[in-house]
Amino acid sequence: MKILLIGASGTIGRAIDNELKARHEIIRVGHKSGELRVNITDSVSIRSMFEQAGPFDALISAVGKVHFGALAEMSEAEFAVGLKDKLMGQVNLVLIGREFANDGASFTLTSGVLSDDPIRYGASASMVNGAIDAFVRSAALELPRAMRINSVSPTVIEEALPAYAPYFRGYKAVPAALAALAYAKSTEGAQTGQVYRVW
Amino acid sequence: MKILLIGASGTIGRAIDNELKARHEIIRVGHKSGELRVNITDSVSIRSMFEQAGPFDALISAVGKVHFGALAEMSEAEFAVGLKDKLMGQVNLVLIGREFANDGASFTLTSGVLSDDPIRYGASASMVNGAIDAFVRSAALELPRAMRINSVSPTVIEEALPAYAPYFRGYKAVPAALAALAYAKSTEGAQTGQVYRVW
Ligand SMILES: NC(=O)c1ccc[n+]([C@@H]2O[C@H](COP(=O)([O-])OP(=O)(O)OC[C@H]3O[C@@H](n4cnc5c(N)ncnc54)[C@H](OP(=O)(O)O)[C@@H]3O)[C@@H](O)[C@H]2O)c1
Ligand SMILES: NC(=O)c1ccc[n+]([C@@H]2O[C@H](COP(=O)([O-])OP(=O)(O)OC[C@H]3O[C@@H](n4cnc5c(N)ncnc54)[C@H](OP(=O)(O)O)[C@@H]3O)[C@@H](O)[C@H]2O)c1
Repeated sequence: MKILLIGASGTIGRAIDNELKARHEIIRVGHKSGELRVNITDSVSIRSMFEQAGPFDALISAVGKVHFGALAEMSEAEFAVGLKDKLMGQVNLVLIGREFANDGASFTLTSGVLSDDPIRYGASASMVNGAIDAFVRSAALELPRAMRINSVSPTVIEEALPAYAPYFRGYKAVPAALAALAYAKSTEGAQTGQVYRVW
Repeated sequence: MKILLIGASGTIGRAIDNELKARHEIIRVGHKSGELRVNITDSVSIRSMFEQAGPFDALISAVGKVHFGALAEMSEAEFAVGLKDKLMGQVNLVLIGREFANDGASFTLTSGVLSDDPIRYGASASMVNGAIDAFVRSAALELPRAMRINSVSPTVIEEALPAYAPYFRGYKAVPAALAALAYAKSTEGAQTGQVYRVW
């Protein structure tokens, strides 16, 4: 399979690359690194990336920024960051990418545990993750040409604990390699409309 | 309790009004009707409504528009409607309303069954409902002064079947009066961070 891996240089992206590269052709895509570049917050940039990539069999997205902060200090503007970046950035990879995808292609997006198991400072992350998981359940009904779509919802990743541990006390972290299995299941399996929880 | 009921003239709003009016002071708020007016897509209008309403003990929101349509014909713009209206409109009622709310006040938002049980044409509704339910779970951790927040997730409402039945074949509809009980539970009970499914 020809797989576009968006966020290939990231904590989770690198583990997905390791899991899949022996079996597939991986096109590594990033914002400031990678064989192809994209800014997921810009639909013109997304379309240009797909034009360069050409037809593909699978897209995996392991990207997306949200504002982390105290709810008391958050207004509409802070929530807009995550809606534009992690939510609609990833959704636009599907809405635009479906034009370029081969029959039967799969899309795998990244959400996260906070929609179900919230923490302080995570209101925007929770909102966005819940939106992504519900979007994939629904979009799976309507994608054309036997295309599939799933999301992977990881808990905090072990390799990211140096930065995130204070926010996730008491959460059992998982290695990025374990999360990567869920992306392989989504991409190499046959299911659609699923949320793969890696908790 | 002094309860601000946003969307009081609607199918669900009228049933909430009927359920609660014998026991509480209801301030009926709408877009083109009601004792107070607000446009939930405009934060200036929201603030002005709260200034007119004065301190309150509970806010119930039974409003919110999303684009219904074939996923094949939807791009970023169609998803933006629901993010701006049903999602951030209701979230802004909380973000701005908390400044005006009495200690211990409750917020009750409206999501819907489509986040969990999707239909054709419902991708934006699914996304937005999933976002709302995850937001209330998370915001409940951080609201100040013992404020509470829940959502009510109704299935299709019996009184709305003349318009919606073709989209919801096989769904068991519920009377608006049954959904209204969940708003009463949220408002008059003590729970927070809950999604009340009326399915
Ligand atoms: N880490 C965790 O513990 C954890 C847990 C649950 C969920 N998640 C979710 O998993 C996803 C990836 O997280 P991560 O920790 O692996 O991220 P990360 O290490 O910060 O890597 C981010 C990746 O995204 C790319 N990127 C950044 N901005 C971009 C943009 N505007 N357009 C396109 N690509 C962009 C970066 O590319 P360049 O390097 O080229 O700039 C990089 O490859 C996020 O959605 C995150 O919320 C993470
Ligand atoms: N009906 C169903 O079967 C069903 C099922 C599940 C979930 N829901 C959800 O429940 C909520 C209410 O649905 P409904 O069917 O009861 O709605 P509805 O009958 O269409 O009533 C809409 C209400 O919202 C008000 N409104 C419209 N635009 C507004 C704006 N921009 N700012 C403030 N208020 C505005 C209207 O006020 P005016 O009359 O003054 O203009 C009216 O009171 C929606 O979020 C819907 O998605 C509905």
